[in-house]
This record gives sequence, C-alpha cells and structure tokens, in this order.
Amino acid sequence: MLHSMRRRNCGRWTFAAAFLLPLLVARVMGAEKADIVVTNALVVTMNAQREVFSPGAVVIRGERIVAVGPAPIAGKFTATRTIDAAGGIVMPGMINTHTHAAMSVFRGLGDDVPDRLRRYIWPLEAKVVNADLVYWGALHGLVEMVEGGVTTFVDMYPHPESTARAAQKIGIRGVITYDVKDDLAPVRQFVATWRNDPLIIPALGLHSPYGASAEQIRQAALLSKELDLRVSMHVAEMDFELEELQKKYGQTPVEYLNSLGLLSPRLIAAHCIFLTDTDIALLKANDVGVAHNMVANIKSAKGVAPVLKLRAAGVRVGLGTDGAMSGNTLDVISQLGYVAKLHKLANHDRSVMPAIDVVEMATIGGARALHLEDRLGSLEAGKLADVVVIDTKSTSMIPLYDPYTALVYAASPRDVRTTIVNGREVMRDRRVQTVNTRDVAEHVRALTKNIEKIAATLN
Amino acid sequence: MLHSMRRRNCGRWTFAAAFLLPLLVARVMGAEKADIVVTNALVVTMNAQREVFSPGAVVIRGERIVAVGPAPIAGKFTATRTIDAAGGIVMPGMINTHTHAAMSVFRGLGDDVPDRLRRYIWPLEAKVVNADLVYWGALHGLVEMVEGGVTTFVDMYPHPESTARAAQKIGIRGVITYDVKDDLAPVRQFVATWRNDPLIIPALGLHSPYGASAEQIRQAALLSKELDLRVSMHVAEMDFELEELQKKYGQTPVEYLNSLGLLSPRLIAAHCIFLTDTDIALLKANDVGVAHNMVANIKSAKGVAPVLKLRAAGVRVGLGTDGAMSGNTLDVISQLGYVAKLHKLANHDRSVMPAIDVVEMATIGGARALHLEDRLGSLEAGKLADVVVIDTKSTSMIPLYDPYTALVYAASPRDVRTTIVNGREVMRDRRVQTVNTRDVAEHVRALTKNIEKIAATLN
Repeated sequence: MLHSMRRRNCGRWTFAAAFLLPLLVARVMGAEKADIVVTNALVVTMNAQREVFSPGAVVIRGERIVAVGPAPIAGKFTATRTIDAAGGIVMPGMINTHTHAAMSVFRGLGDDVPDRLRRYIWPLEAKVVNADLVYWGALHGLVEMVEGGVTTFVDMYPHPESTARAAQKIGIRGVITYDVKDDLAPVRQFVATWRNDPLIIPALGLHSPYGASAEQIRQAALLSKELDLRVSMHVAEMDFELEELQKKYGQTPVEYLNSLGLLSPRLIAAHCIFLTDTDIALLKANDVGVAHNMVANIKSAKGVAPVLKLRAAGVRVGLGTDGAMSGNTLDVISQLGYVAKLHKLANHDRSVMPAIDVVEMATIGGARALHLEDRLGSLEAGKLADVVVIDTKSTSMIPLYDPYTALVYAASPRDVRTTIVNGREVMRDRRVQTVNTRDVAEHVRALTKNIEKIAATLN
Repeated sequence: MLHSMRRRNCGRWTFAAAFLLPLLVARVMGAEKADIVVTNALVVTMNAQREVFSPGAVVIRGERIVAVGPAPIAGKFTATRTIDAAGGIVMPGMINTHTHAAMSVFRGLGDDVPDRLRRYIWPLEAKVVNADLVYWGALHGLVEMVEGGVTTFVDMYPHPESTARAAQKIGIRGVITYDVKDDLAPVRQFVATWRNDPLIIPALGLHSPYGASAEQIRQAALLSKELDLRVSMHVAEMDFELEELQKKYGQTPVEYLNSLGLLSPRLIAAHCIFLTDTDIALLKANDVGVAHNMVANIKSAKGVAPVLKLRAAGVRVGLGTDGAMSGNTLDVISQLGYVAKLHKLANHDRSVMPAIDVVEMATIGGARALHLEDRLGSLEAGKLADVVVIDTKSTSMIPLYDPYTALVYAASPRDVRTTIVNGREVMRDRRVQTVNTRDVAEHVRALTKNIEKIAATLN
C-alpha cells in the first residue's frame, strides 16, 4: 500500500532521490517518517468495506494519507506531530456540497418571513454586497465550517475572488463558482487565476433555471465542457420555477436543463426537491451530482427531496447547508439528524435512511457528487489528508455503542476537536490556526450595523 | 415589585424580623442584599409582554428572582456572587415536559430498527433495568439536561425513587411519576416520601391507553383527584393504539381517556400526534397539558403533532425530548430547530411557528403545560430562580440580530454556560457543581458492557 502511494505521488527520480532515500533508510532502521500520526482513535474510514478500526490510527505525510488501520500501524512511523484522539471519532473531513459562505453576515435575518428570496434577500443583497463584505463574510462562514469539521465546500456568491481568497487564507478546500452572465471574459480570467491553486477548484455558477437565461445556460454548458469545469446551480427548488417552465416550455426544470445541454457529470444540482421519475432517470443517465440541503428545504417549507429514490437509482448525492439565511448553520454535522429523520418521516418507515447512509452522504457521497471520490471522502492510503477528530467526551456522546448513530443523532458541531485539510492542521484543539477568529467576528459585527439599518426598511 | 415579593415570600413576622430588617437597613444605606446578580446580559424574559433587556440584569435572592430589568437595576443590589454573562442570552430555565432520563444508558441502541418498542426496548428493559441502573442512568441524563439548560423535567420510568434521588443529588427540579398498577399502596408511599421536597413534585404515571388497563386508568384518575397529583401518559402516539381502541370501543385515545375520567388540568399528555378536532376540543375543555416531542416523533416516522391547531385552540403545549432511545439527546435546545421547521413544512408555510413561539413552548409554555406558570417559565420578580446563561460567542451565534432566531436556528446545547435551579448555581462555566460528571460517565460505561451483550441477542 505504501509503495504504490510513493509511486503515485513522487513519480520523478529527482524527487525520489531527495525524499525517498531517507525514508527507505528510516525503514531499514525500523520506522518510516510521517508528518502527522493520529492515534488512540475510533477510525471511521468510509472506505468501500466501511471498515472501522477501534482503536485505530491514521498516518499523514505531506498532503496525503499514507496509512490507515488498527492502532499498531502507528508504530511503523516516526511523526513530527502525534495527535492523541483520546478515543474520539476520526473520520473523513465532511463535504458541504452547496453553500453561500459570505451570507454568514445575514444569519438570523428574515427567518420567518414569507416569500423571502424575492421580497427580502435580493433587495438586501443589492444594497450591501461588495467585495469586502464577501471576504469577511466568507472568512466567518469558513471558520464555522472548519470548526464543524467541513474540509471541502462548494460556494456560489458574487465576488467569488473574495471567497477564494478567504478559503486560501483559512486553508480549506473550495469549489468556488463564478456566476455566468453574458460576458465570459471575467469568468475565463477567474478560472485562469485559480486553476493551479492546491486548494481552490474554480467552477461555474448559474443561479437557477429562472435566474439565468436560456442563452446563459447554453454558454455555461459549452464553457464547462471546453475547460472541464464543474457547474453549480439551484435546480427544482421553487414552486414558481416549476410553474414558469411548465407554462413556457411544458418541461420540468431537469428536462429544460437537459434540452440546453447542461446535464453532465460536471453539474452539481442543488436542492432537487421536485423531481419526476423521468427527471431522476435523466440525472442518472448524465451522472449529475446532487447537493441535498435538508435543513434549508424544510425551514422554507418547500419539501423533502426524494433522496431515497435518487440513491436507489444510483444518483450521486451529497449534503449541503445552503447559506446562513436559509439554514443558519454551515457545518454538516447539524444536517445529519435532519436528513435521517425527515426521510424516515416522509417515507413512514423508521428503518430507512439509517445513520451509516447519512454519514456516507456527508463524506464519500459528497465526494462522489463532486466527482472527486478518487482523492476525497474516505480515509484510505493515497487519498488527500482531509481528516477530522470528533470528541466523544460530551455527555450526549456517552455511551457510544455505534459511531454512526452517535454522529447522526447525538453529536454537535462543537464536538469537533481537530480539522486537517490537505495534510495541514487547520484547527487544533478547537482553535483555528490560520486566522484570528475574534478579529473576524469583530469585522462581521461591524458590518452588521449597516445591514441591520437596511434590513429594517424591508420588514 | 420588590415589596410585593417580600410579602409573598416572607409572610410571617418572625421571618420578617430575622431577615427583612437587615435588608431594609441595607436599603437605607443605598443597596439591598442579593445572592446572585447576573449582569451584562441579553435578558429574554418571556414575561407576558415578552420584554427583552439588552443590556439587562437578573437579581436572585434565596430561591426567588427579586428583580429583572435594564442593566442599571443591578446597581441597587450588593450580591454575594456576580455572574458576568458577557453579552450572553439570559433566559428562563427550559422545561422538558416528557422524558425517561435513565434511558440515557441505552442511547444509540436500535436507532434504525422497525417496531422498536415491542421488539427491542421492552425485551431489553425486562432484562437489565433495576434500581441501580436507573439511578446512574438518571444521573447521566440529568447531567445532560443541566448542561443543556433544562431546569425542570417530567420523568416516567421504573424505580422512580432512583430518579428522584438522582434529581435531588444534581439539584434539578423534577416532576417524577410513579407508574400506577393495581396496588396503590407503593404509589401513596412514594408520594408521601417526596411530597415536601423543595425540588421534587411526585406524580402519577400511566404508560399509555394500550399499556394500562381501563381499571388502572380509572384508579389513577381518582387518586390524581384525591391527592392533587399530576399524571403523565403517552397519548395518541401509536398507530396500533388508535386501531385497537377504535376496534374495541369505537373511540379515539382522547375520547377513551375522557370516558375513564382521566382528562383534567392535572394530566400531561405526551405526544398527541393523532388528534381529531373533537380530541382537541376535549383537551381544551379539560385544560390538559400537552408534551410535544418533535424529534422523537419524526425519528420514529410517526408524524407531526397538530401543534398549530392545539395552540390556536388555546391548549397548553410544552416541549419534551422523550428518552435517549427515542430522540437521543435530552436537552431542549436541540428540539427548537426541529419544532420550528417541521411545523413550517407540515403546514407549507415558512412564516408559521416563528422562533419566538418555539422559545415560548420551551419555557413559559412548558410551565403552563404543567400548570406551574405561577412560579416557573419566565424571568419575573417573584418567580422561582430557574435561570440559564447561553454564550453568544460561538461562530454560529454571530451575528446576533434576534435572540429568538439565534436560539432556535443556531444555538447548540454546548453553548449553555450557567444553569441556576431554585437559586442555586448547579452548573458554573460548563462545570456541573453537584456531581463528578466523569464518575457518572464511568459508571454508565461500566453498565453498557452487559447491555451491549443482551442487545446483541435482540437484533
């Protein structure tokens, strides 16, 4: 396993000469070098066999996982840093497949207001959103994600360069989308700027079938294909969206997007609440990824997306939080219980959507929805080292008969102790290492004065 | 306000001579004595006007609140202990109107198992439940409640004397029910033992319309009236319950209980998922309290209780967690988001069940459901001092435009910093003061070895 890893990561002989020889020598001496070893862990791998090692260990070198297994494997390595998980759950970093991080500055505004998007959010955003607000709002939102064990997020918002800079600063992995309008030059510019960043995956954004024109959707489809870019879009989320498309084209949102050539493995369709069986077949045939946002969908009284059917059809489904005006929190752990329980309720069966399936969507399922499962979503040698440690000392985590049910039904995002992204310990012992979170909070509080004034005129 | 307080609490002249004179002297000197002053607070009173004081203060003397208001009121008192809430939300202690605290030892077992009550829980309980397990399980469950800001709970479980002793040890207020079977002598004994305890309110339990005989229900109704005892019961929770009663008596569960004389202001009916309009009218006419357990009800795929209708009819509704095998967590904060969102979803309207209504059910609504609103449920001079402080420093609590939406949509039970019950600081800075929580956790872990072995035979 280790040998194949080395081959994959360090293919060039110059690199091998500089770095591999000392490791080989160390091995002869009895131990290989590593950067981080996580020990004393309840390791939930989410690999194909869903292996759990208790006690187990995870070994990281550079940006990759090099070994995962029962506790004794740690003994084969000498590491610069050893993290004692103290019996905590060590699992793949969670993937937030749909969010608007910068909207953290609006959290708690207009929560119980009817027709909020058109009457409240859009007018508010038109008046206050600028590159500075997006930078600080994204930083704040990303602090929350890292603190909650999210290691990859997919973002849609104006001023995506601000969000990308914030992600870079924090050290979180981001699929950051640039909204496609009529002029494609700035989109191409954005993609060129970020294409080679180790953490940022530039992508395209389209608001929705009703928020983008048919021509814009067609252009985005072509550009997505030309530059191999992912596209994120709100799909089949609104009742008025369904009505409009039915009236204009006699089509469902998915059929409409199919007619414009947008359905492809590169599309990440958020929400997908209102789907026909034909829609589900189209999503599967085109290998589209779905971002399931349960909390946001039910808080807005829209409905429960048919995720059991999607999964049965083999569609790739991950979890998303949506923005903080929709679901209020940006960590994935807070979604887990809702996802399990709402599908049980909607299907009148307490045995469907068991905890392990929910954890799957939060990790490897999210990676699959983004077509990144070759490098993310599970703890396996060779994958990128996105790893979180979750304390099991909180009262609600005791006793712990089953790590999946503990995570889904009893854990809090506040239980996340350590978040490692790309081999870097971005949060250590609940302290984000890369930004001063108090400064970020102060910046956000300062922004809210003006926001509050304008919001008051909209109620 | 203070004068009327004194009159109410310290009626006797002997008492007045011993305690009031020094206070009057202190007042002449410019400051009154108090035991605890909570300052620098965002005070959410939940009084009839739903006043919020920011910054505000709460003053406690003995077991009572003596003043609540804008920050400067604190200046009128000299207190033994000052709690700086650091801008946190100070609110009434939350009321868990339905739980089985000792079931904390089973948390996470059989979560996704069909027909779990009859196939799993009952056989398991028959084999392992004894007075010792109930004591440690209740202690553990009550630690979780105190840590989550619960100050009053209503419990149903075998060996209620163990639960009462655990509540006494922790220092939490409990309505503890004794299950009524054919022999009433042990029930009367239990009531006599605990009747004068400052924190324990002994009461009667009846499992359910299907779990108790008609004669037992009749006996409980008579005893409840004779000794003025509350009765807790699972009502209209199970589909088989409805079918059986319909077949046998042609009645709904509520109609059946009415025919047996059980409906009264002393009844706390848990769940009430399946209600007809006639049932709702019967509950209102008899001033029955309802314990609404959203998380447990949807995890078991049963349904969403018609709480909007109940509230519109003027029925008293509080929130409950049920046991840890049903809803997994025992704090009320974890219920709030579910309650808000599920009623929006069930009613296809994002504006119904706004955050303030949910906080109401968690506090004064719960007190009303127990007919204890004269002394619990809001921060008002004269009421018993059940007060919690909730940190607003967590990332998801920033910004804070509205304390109600922050509590309902973004807070975690881990944000509770201080829990005061009956004037006593039971948790200070997240440390329970009355028991060693590590010892409790160790005892619970030791119990789980045997439980796990037996549970394995039931799957």
